[in-house]
Amino acid sequence: MKPIRVIQIGLGPIGMATAKLVQQKRALRLVAAVDVRPGVGQELGVPLFSSIGAAARRHPADVAILTTGSRFLRVRALLGEIFATGLHIVSSCEELLFPWHRNPREADLTDRAARRAGVACLGTGVNPGFVMDTLALATSGVCQRVEAVRVWRVQDVAKRRPQLQEKVGAGMDEDEFRGLVAAGCIGHVGLQESLALIAHGLGWKLSRVTECIEPVIAARDCGSRHLRVKKGQVAGVSQVARGLRGGKEVLRLDLKMFMGAENPRDEIQISGVPPMQLVIPGATPGDYATAAILVNCVPRIVTAPPGLRTMLDLPVPRAIP
Amino acid sequence: MKPIRVIQIGLGPIGMATAKLVQQKRALRLVAAVDVRPGVGQELGVPLFSSIGAAARRHPADVAILTTGSRFLRVRALLGEIFATGLHIVSSCEELLFPWHRNPREADLTDRAARRAGVACLGTGVNPGFVMDTLALATSGVCQRVEAVRVWRVQDVAKRRPQLQEKVGAGMDEDEFRGLVAAGCIGHVGLQESLALIAHGLGWKLSRVTECIEPVIAARDCGSRHLRVKKGQVAGVSQVARGLRGGKEVLRLDLKMFMGAENPRDEIQISGVPPMQLVIPGATPGDYATAAILVNCVPRIVTAPPGLRTMLDLPVPRAIP
Repeated sequence: MKPIRVIQIGLGPIGMATAKLVQQKRALRLVAAVDVRPGVGQELGVPLFSSIGAAARRHPADVAILTTGSRFLRVRALLGEIFATGLHIVSSCEELLFPWHRNPREADLTDRAARRAGVACLGTGVNPGFVMDTLALATSGVCQRVEAVRVWRVQDVAKRRPQLQEKVGAGMDEDEFRGLVAAGCIGHVGLQESLALIAHGLGWKLSRVTECIEPVIAARDCGSRHLRVKKGQVAGVSQVARGLRGGKEVLRLDLKMFMGAENPRDEIQISGVPPMQLVIPGATPGDYATAAILVNCVPRIVTAPPGLRTMLDLPVPRAIP
Repeated sequence: MKPIRVIQIGLGPIGMATAKLVQQKRALRLVAAVDVRPGVGQELGVPLFSSIGAAARRHPADVAILTTGSRFLRVRALLGEIFATGLHIVSSCEELLFPWHRNPREADLTDRAARRAGVACLGTGVNPGFVMDTLALATSGVCQRVEAVRVWRVQDVAKRRPQLQEKVGAGMDEDEFRGLVAAGCIGHVGLQESLALIAHGLGWKLSRVTECIEPVIAARDCGSRHLRVKKGQVAGVSQVARGLRGGKEVLRLDLKMFMGAENPRDEIQISGVPPMQLVIPGATPGDYATAAILVNCVPRIVTAPPGLRTMLDLPVPRAIP
């Protein structure tokens, strides 16, 4: 089997991890990388470009892994550029998991553009992309009837990288935290997309979707090597998305990331026949897992029909050799 | 959307449960049922037939759900009959999960026959089909590297149906148990197929596969409403399949079904990067779940390419409306 040729687009922390993982896989080959910042990514030892078109012209490839942004409308122009090169796309763009949720018209246009170009395009990751959506839907596969789905992802950021501790607001006072939430600087992107993907997968029309982002206030002094949090300060973030059907809450995704969180875990509960509970003790480690699932989806997207695809269109993701 | 028309073939306990579940699904319609025993299945209120050909001629359909046997070689002739009718197939036949494991030549022939007929054919269920194989592979989707996969399924049969308690040998003495194992009357069919599917999914060539079936001896009197087990008698069965690669155990599936089993659960452990652990406390309830996953796979098989398919070829299974 000839290896699948990959161009990595975006060389931030996730992109670098993804590119290096591609280089470890027998089934894949990294042929080039793209970043607008000159000089970034030299340790990969592959040709570097500042534009997708130039990279693809010089290095024929099959798939682009795109890790440049979280918002669908912001990556849309890039998607168009990649479509023009004839590459399939796997992207960490959170809203691309289910872009119809916020931007149905633009999602349809992008879907049509991908079809015209004959390429398939997927948004995925560990969250959104796996623990709070795809895994919940897979669990429902053994249910005769589903009445409600609840998912928790509880992470103790004390054990995670310093950037993440800051990103969740640890050590801030409550006003500062709320200001940053209002400015869109704190909060996980993609929770509503996970919810919308579950609803779509179960064939449910939701009458209402709500989301709230609240600080978790430290009940006592806590912290990590990197950052101290005093009692009364913000320890992190609690973000909850709810989906209602006919006035009843049928979906709830509850994401908590804070210093000293007890019982860190991913947990899926399905009310139905049979009821199901599934737990990943300690919670899936986000950094490793995101690079993994992006790379593991590369062989899946190559054989997918053209268009904007979701995790529900592709075969079960699995570790590739 | 027009409902998918289903013919149920085999009206034992699983087949009846499946047929009734089809009747509850908006997306499906049960148009006929087939069983060689006259009079069976009248409560379904659909036309009953003793032959597949007659049923399919009289009632045009899209998919056959086949629940007549566990062994691939025994259902092979039936598969051929169904191919001739042009129906896609979802079957609970345990060995059909991955028939290449025991019968590669016959599996290839059946695959070719299905392609010629233009139909897709799938073996699935809760186990094999989900907890000890598909779910383990899906979990590996967030792994950068997998070194070993171990799965436990531990069920306390005291809470299950009486037939299952007898099937696992509860209340027998050890000699009787071993005689029945030797005669092929005790033991779960499909454990090696689960193992082979995982290896296939991970792209691993196994150097050796072993399987052993041992009695679990009651350490104290125990039992259910239906059946008493005295200390020293058989409480149930422990069945372990192992897969080796280069002399090293890389896969282990451990199935324990006995009276009074503690910590009943499905548990998946992946050694790798990142390591993953996933637990379904109480273990997925087999009876409900098997009917569910068979029915939930019906819409997936209709759109699959013709041929003998596995759970790895199809999109993530999920509860259908």
